[in-house]
Amino acid sequence: MAIWSDDALARARDIGLLGLDVDGTLTDGRLWIAAGGEQFKAFHVQDGLGLKLLRQQGIHVVWITARRSAIVAARAAELGIEDVIQGCRDKREALAERCAARRLDLQRAAFMGDDLPDLPAMTSCRLAAAPCNAHTEVAARAHWQSDRAGGEGAVRQLCDGLLVAQGKFDQAMGAYLS
Amino acid sequence: MAIWSDDALARARDIGLLGLDVDGTLTDGRLWIAAGGEQFKAFHVQDGLGLKLLRQQGIHVVWITARRSAIVAARAAELGIEDVIQGCRDKREALAERCAARRLDLQRAAFMGDDLPDLPAMTSCRLAAAPCNAHTEVAARAHWQSDRAGGEGAVRQLCDGLLVAQGKFDQAMGAYLS
Amino acid sequence: MAIWSDDALARARDIGLLGLDVDGTLTDGRLWIAAGGEQFKAFHVQDGLGLKLLRQQGIHVVWITARRSAIVAARAAELGIEDVIQGCRDKREALAERCAARRLDLQRAAFMGDDLPDLPAMTSCRLAAAPCNAHTEVAARAHWQSDRAGGEGAVRQLCDGLLVAQGKFDQAMGAYLS
Amino acid sequence: MAIWSDDALARARDIGLLGLDVDGTLTDGRLWIAAGGEQFKAFHVQDGLGLKLLRQQGIHVVWITARRSAIVAARAAELGIEDVIQGCRDKREALAERCAARRLDLQRAAFMGDDLPDLPAMTSCRLAAAPCNAHTEVAARAHWQSDRAGGEGAVRQLCDGLLVAQGKFDQAMGAYLS
Repeated sequence: MAIWSDDALARARDIGLLGLDVDGTLTDGRLWIAAGGEQFKAFHVQDGLGLKLLRQQGIHVVWITARRSAIVAARAAELGIEDVIQGCRDKREALAERCAARRLDLQRAAFMGDDLPDLPAMTSCRLAAAPCNAHTEVAARAHWQSDRAGGEGAVRQLCDGLLVAQGKFDQAMGAYLS
Repeated sequence: MAIWSDDALARARDIGLLGLDVDGTLTDGRLWIAAGGEQFKAFHVQDGLGLKLLRQQGIHVVWITARRSAIVAARAAELGIEDVIQGCRDKREALAERCAARRLDLQRAAFMGDDLPDLPAMTSCRLAAAPCNAHTEVAARAHWQSDRAGGEGAVRQLCDGLLVAQGKFDQAMGAYLS
Repeated sequence: MAIWSDDALARARDIGLLGLDVDGTLTDGRLWIAAGGEQFKAFHVQDGLGLKLLRQQGIHVVWITARRSAIVAARAAELGIEDVIQGCRDKREALAERCAARRLDLQRAAFMGDDLPDLPAMTSCRLAAAPCNAHTEVAARAHWQSDRAGGEGAVRQLCDGLLVAQGKFDQAMGAYLS
Repeated sequence: MAIWSDDALARARDIGLLGLDVDGTLTDGRLWIAAGGEQFKAFHVQDGLGLKLLRQQGIHVVWITARRSAIVAARAAELGIEDVIQGCRDKREALAERCAARRLDLQRAAFMGDDLPDLPAMTSCRLAAAPCNAHTEVAARAHWQSDRAGGEGAVRQLCDGLLVAQGKFDQAMGAYLS
């Protein structure tokens, strides 16, 4: 697993809400397109379990994306994630609004993204995370960077790290070791 | 091929049943999703031949997955694998039940998986295997780990290893060298 | 980001038009094909943003491909790129013609491609670029080569490099740092 | 480009017919499967051009696959390759038969494959080639191995190597350098 600095670990300790970009973060950034315009995105099964464990341990999850796609809604529904903001013009505003709605200080939020439109959300919250294939300028501003690419387990690594930092990982794993 | 320790080889010697996770093990863990909810998974042709050789040499194969998908049934049917357990809540129980049904001791079973829900099955059988992209906690509990990822030949490497350990590989290959 | 030589940077300084090959450059070169003949290509979301930033800074973008596919038209439409030449037999001629139509000297054009049919366009313009998985003979003739593959951000790296060379990158990023 | 030994180069010099496996050689071995049973395979655009150049220089191309799929027929038709043998039980026999039909000695045939069913054809012809992700036992019997995987340009590298060995590469490239 990618290394967590003391600073990143400290930032992870109080996170109560995780905001996630979709294309390039929950997916590898590829858009499969057919002649008729039909599209596919590829999500990762390990990310799905990470988000489930995170939510079971009381950390809220929000997906925030600039694009609009029924694909994203379908995957979110499959995972039971209700907080999905599509067609978002300002991810910082969206993240702040979701924190306010849950009466959570923005300093208790984390955000993971891979490209420039994610920077406003990343620089306004407590913990900024990025997949290994993030844009250089985004990676440079992340407190923690996964050694996995978007759509290949980067989100799962972040989920695990948050649980470890909060002393909740053993409990989350417990169900699978009994 | 990934290295087999003496311990892993010894464990492979008596295996009569191989249990396999699907997403992340028989596939690379990606779920391609379309706007209408249609899904694709990607299986690997080399894994298919490995499973065929294994079964020709008398080792039974069971697929055990927590998800439910007609995709898995379609691929299993194509390979002639009849023992497919979908929507499984407890992979240890499922593996034990399949062993019992075939009057085989659980100590003659192997299981390959990539994530936490596979741990109960892996820790209860004789040989636990994992693809190279398995979750850290799963890799740490595997007796053998492939140097190929799930869906990219990890299962084939395991099949080959089982046949080698049991002195059946040359016979399996024989048909292709005549 | 892949290294820019002094020569490549100098060549990037005056570029006013970027010509792009599609298969292998804007995609990873794979053609997904179904039994009924349906096809998919995979484009990358980071490339899409790079092209948007480039055009906002006044650099014109043209896609030039030897094949014909409604997929390409669909992706171009999504990005608002109107200048798409499909079924092109001579990419040098097409690039020269597009430059002429915009009253731009060919010495102010760049072209990125991955295979032999891209060479005539690449050798006739000021800056020839290639993704890391380009054919050896194409890579050998490129002034700059990305360390990312086609369809995995190679085009984005080129867009960023053009903006940096022209002193426009900070302005382009500005909107995301306010 | 992957290194050609003196022996492999000598073997390449007289090749008049190239036999190719499909899954794992012309594709990366993945089988995308949907719930309804629909399948996709991914071919590579660079391989397509390699086969075109090869045929323009007088080397005949045959695809030989054990599986049966309308996908393969669709891709072959797109490339204008008429010699496609599907559902093949014995690739050596098929290769020998195609050579006989063209009044070509089997010692003027090459074959590229990635798995055990390709071995009979590979060991019976003059030049056996394999992609970098071939099965260990197949790689061990290849006279030349690409450093690219199946479906990612391995076939193209072989086409280029054949043309270089026969002194036809410069002529093939000529059309793109005029």
